[in-house]
Amino acid sequence: MKHLLSIEDLSAAQIHHLLELTDHMVEVSSRPIPKVPALRGKNVVSLFFEDSTRTRTSFDTAAKRLSADTMNFAISSSSVNKGESLRDTIETISAMGVDAFVVRHKSSGAPQMVTRWTNASIINAGDGWHQHPTQALLDCFTIRTSLNRRDGFDGLHIAIVGDIKHSRVARSDVQAFAALGARVTLVAPPTLLPPSLDGWPVEVSHDLDALLPHLDVLYLLRVQRERMDDALLPSLDEYSAMYGLTPARAARMAPHALVMHPGPMNRGVEMVADPGELPGSVILNQVTNGVAVRMAVLFWLLGSGADLKSSDLKGDAS
Amino acid sequence: MKHLLSIEDLSAAQIHHLLELTDHMVEVSSRPIPKVPALRGKNVVSLFFEDSTRTRTSFDTAAKRLSADTMNFAISSSSVNKGESLRDTIETISAMGVDAFVVRHKSSGAPQMVTRWTNASIINAGDGWHQHPTQALLDCFTIRTSLNRRDGFDGLHIAIVGDIKHSRVARSDVQAFAALGARVTLVAPPTLLPPSLDGWPVEVSHDLDALLPHLDVLYLLRVQRERMDDALLPSLDEYSAMYGLTPARAARMAPHALVMHPGPMNRGVEMVADPGELPGSVILNQVTNGVAVRMAVLFWLLGSGADLKSSDLKGDAS
Amino acid sequence: MKHLLSIEDLSAAQIHHLLELTDHMVEVSSRPIPKVPALRGKNVVSLFFEDSTRTRTSFDTAAKRLSADTMNFAISSSSVNKGESLRDTIETISAMGVDAFVVRHKSSGAPQMVTRWTNASIINAGDGWHQHPTQALLDCFTIRTSLNRRDGFDGLHIAIVGDIKHSRVARSDVQAFAALGARVTLVAPPTLLPPSLDGWPVEVSHDLDALLPHLDVLYLLRVQRERMDDALLPSLDEYSAMYGLTPARAARMAPHALVMHPGPMNRGVEMVADPGELPGSVILNQVTNGVAVRMAVLFWLLGSGADLKSSDLKGDAS
Repeated sequence: MKHLLSIEDLSAAQIHHLLELTDHMVEVSSRPIPKVPALRGKNVVSLFFEDSTRTRTSFDTAAKRLSADTMNFAISSSSVNKGESLRDTIETISAMGVDAFVVRHKSSGAPQMVTRWTNASIINAGDGWHQHPTQALLDCFTIRTSLNRRDGFDGLHIAIVGDIKHSRVARSDVQAFAALGARVTLVAPPTLLPPSLDGWPVEVSHDLDALLPHLDVLYLLRVQRERMDDALLPSLDEYSAMYGLTPARAARMAPHALVMHPGPMNRGVEMVADPGELPGSVILNQVTNGVAVRMAVLFWLLGSGADLKSSDLKGDAS
Repeated sequence: MKHLLSIEDLSAAQIHHLLELTDHMVEVSSRPIPKVPALRGKNVVSLFFEDSTRTRTSFDTAAKRLSADTMNFAISSSSVNKGESLRDTIETISAMGVDAFVVRHKSSGAPQMVTRWTNASIINAGDGWHQHPTQALLDCFTIRTSLNRRDGFDGLHIAIVGDIKHSRVARSDVQAFAALGARVTLVAPPTLLPPSLDGWPVEVSHDLDALLPHLDVLYLLRVQRERMDDALLPSLDEYSAMYGLTPARAARMAPHALVMHPGPMNRGVEMVADPGELPGSVILNQVTNGVAVRMAVLFWLLGSGADLKSSDLKGDAS
Repeated sequence: MKHLLSIEDLSAAQIHHLLELTDHMVEVSSRPIPKVPALRGKNVVSLFFEDSTRTRTSFDTAAKRLSADTMNFAISSSSVNKGESLRDTIETISAMGVDAFVVRHKSSGAPQMVTRWTNASIINAGDGWHQHPTQALLDCFTIRTSLNRRDGFDGLHIAIVGDIKHSRVARSDVQAFAALGARVTLVAPPTLLPPSLDGWPVEVSHDLDALLPHLDVLYLLRVQRERMDDALLPSLDEYSAMYGLTPARAARMAPHALVMHPGPMNRGVEMVADPGELPGSVILNQVTNGVAVRMAVLFWLLGSGADLKSSDLKGDAS
C-alpha cells in the first residue's frame, strides 16, 4: 500500500490489519516516553487547504511519536498566493525531500490528483464530501475496543445521524462499518440525505426515537449552521427536537451502547446532553485513538511495511 | 506542585527552590550543546489566546532544551473559530496526550478554569491583569544574580513605575519581591494605580525623582498607548516628563542600581535613555534568564520533581 | 566566515569550497536516514519580513537534517506589531540564545544592519533587489553538477532573461557565475535593465532568439505582474512573445543546454513550454540542491568550520 486515499481501497482484511497495528501503537503511547525511532529521518508534510487544527495536530503528534520530522503548510502562507499552480507547489515541496503528504482539500479527489505529481505517499485527511479514511479507521478502532469486538462487527447495529449528504465522515464510516460486518442505518431529514443511495450498504430511517433502544452505537454528525442558509434545514431548534441527543433520548439507549461524534460538537444542536455525563460517550476516546490510528497508517506507509518486526517498536528514540 | 497559576500559591521557600533549580538550568544553557533529555517524550502545548511572540518563544526554547516536544496553538487557527467551546477545545487537545499547557488569556482566571478540564499541568503565561508568575520568577532571578543576593532581598528597595493598575507583571512582581524580603514602592499617576491597595505589601509614591538615588532596582512597566484613549493619561509626553527614564534621571541612580523592564519597551515614553548605554540595565539578562526560569518550572512540574537527582541533567539529549 | 550576506564577500576559492561541502551534504541527504548530529543544540531562527514558503522551508529542512533546532518568525505575529523596534526585537530574540538568523527583508541592506545587534551569524535569504546569495550558490551547484563542471565555468555561456532591474537573484547570480569564469549575457527589455551596468561583468542583448542556439544555460527570471502596473511592461503577452520560453524556442537550444528558474514560475508568461517536457530543465534539481547548499552554509557558519573532519557527518543523529 503506497497511499491511503479512500476506505474503498482497503479490504476487510487490511482494515483488520491496520487495527491490529493500532493496538501496538496504543501500547507505545502508554509508555513513560511514548516515542519510538521507527520513522526517524522521514519527512511528513501536512498540506491543509482547509483549516483543521484537530486533524492536523493528531497527525503531527502521531508523526512525532514515531520520530518523523514534520512540516505544516497552511495554504494561505504558501506560494499558491503568488499564483503558482498546485502542481508546481507540490513538485517544489516534494523536491526538497518529502516522504508523505497529509492532504486536506475542499475538492473531492484532490489527494488522488496530488499522487500524480510526487513520489511521496499521500494520506487523505479529508477531501470535500468524499472521504476521510483515518476518521473511519479511528471510529472502527474505538468501537472494536469499547465493545470488545476484535473479530468484527457482525450483529452490531450502528446509526449515523445527521447531515449525511455533505459528510465525508459518513461516507467513510458507512464503508468501513459495513466492511467489518455491521448493520448501518442512516437517520436524517430527507434534505440531508444524498439524492441516491444506490450501492450504499445501509438502511434509512427518519425516526430516531424508534431506533434508539436497539442501537449498539449512535454516531452523531456535526450539523453545519450554513445548511440553514441553504434552506436544507428549517431551523436548528427543529433539527435538535427531531435528531438531537437529549438526556431523555440518552436514557432510552441500551446500557452498553456507545455515543460517538467526530467533533467539533455543536452543543445544543446535535448534542444537547452533556457528553461528560453520558456513560456511553466515547468521544474523547475517539480523539485519543485518532493519534494511534494515524501512527499505524504512517508506519504502514513509511515504515518497514505492514508486517511488524519485533524490533520496530523497541526502545525509545534516544 | 502540579500547576503554576500564581505567585500567591508559592511559599518563599518554594520560590528560593525554583531559583536554585534555575541555577542548574543556566549551567545547562551554557554548555556547547545546551540540551538535556530530562523531558524526552513530554508534550508541552502553548495555548495563546493573546499574541506574544516573546513569551511563547521563551517557553518553546525552554521546552526544547529539555527535549520535550512542543506544539503551538494560536487561537485564530483553532476550532474555537468553528464555535467549539473552550472546554471542548481543551478536552480534545488534552485527549491527544498533553503533559502541560502554557496558557495566555485576556481574562483573569482563565488558566485556573482550564485546570478543571484536563489532567495536564497548567502554567499561567499571563491572564488579564491578574498574574504572570514566570515573569516574576525571572525578575527575581535576575535581581538575585545581578546583585548577588542568593539568600533573599532583605534591605533592597525596589520601585515599580508605571501602569500598575492594568499590569499582571506588577501584581506578580510585588508578591514575589515582598516574599523574598524586599521593600517595594509603587510609582504611578493616581489614575494608573488600582482603586484599593489593601493588602498589597507596598508603599506608594508619586515622586520618582525623590526616590531615584535610594533605589536598588528601578522596574519600568510598559505604558500602553491605549491608556490615553481611556483618558487615564493626558499625554505620553507628560507621562514621559514625570516618569520616563531619561539620561538625566539615570545619572542620579546609585552606581550599583539595576534598570529592568518586562518588554517590549516603548522607547521615548517610559524608556527615554538608550538602555544599551545604561550600565545598570539588565533588560536583556531578563530575557536570557527567562528561558532558564521556564526550564526550571517545566522541570519542576513534569520532571522528576522538585528534587534534582544528579543524573537528571547529565549528558546531552543524543 | 561569520555571516553570509552577499556573493561579493566570497572569493572564487570560497565558492568552490562551499560547493565541495555541498557534495557531502548531497551524500548525507541520500542516506536512508538523511540526518546527522553535526549542529545538535544549535538554534537557527528564520526571520521573514517577506513571505516565502519555498525559501523558509528549504532552510528549515536543511537545519533539521543537521539536527539543529529551528524557530520561525513571520513578522506579522511578532512584537514589531506592538511598536517594538526591529533592533529591540533582534536583541530580545537573540538574548534567548540564537546561533543563526536567516533573514529575508524587503529593504536592501537589512541583514547587514541586523549583524550590529546580535552575536549570531546572519544569513541573507533575500534583501530587496540586492542579494540572495544561497540562491546563487544553489544555481552554481546545479550547473556544476548537471554539466559536470567541477573545476569552474570557463567557456560556459549563460543568459539571464527577464526583470534584471528588480532581481536580487540576477545580481547574485551574475557575480557568482562570473566568479567561476562563465560568460554572462543579460537579456531583457530596456525598461527592465538597471539604469547603469557599470562594473557588471556582463554583456547585454535584446534578442533572445539570436542567442538561443549558443547558450549552455538559459536562466529565466520570474516576471512580476505588478511591473505592468508600473508601466515597465506593455503587456505580459508581449513579454511572452519576445522573451518567453516556448516549445519552439526550446527546440532551438543546444541538446546539452540547461533551463533554470528560481521559482515560483509564471506559467504562460516567462515559461510557456511545460518544463516537465523539456529535457534540459533542471528546475526541480535547483530545489533539491537548495537544501544541500543551505546545509553546507549552515555547517560552514555554525559547524566545525570550513574544513570538514571525517567524523563530522558520521552516524545518524540518534
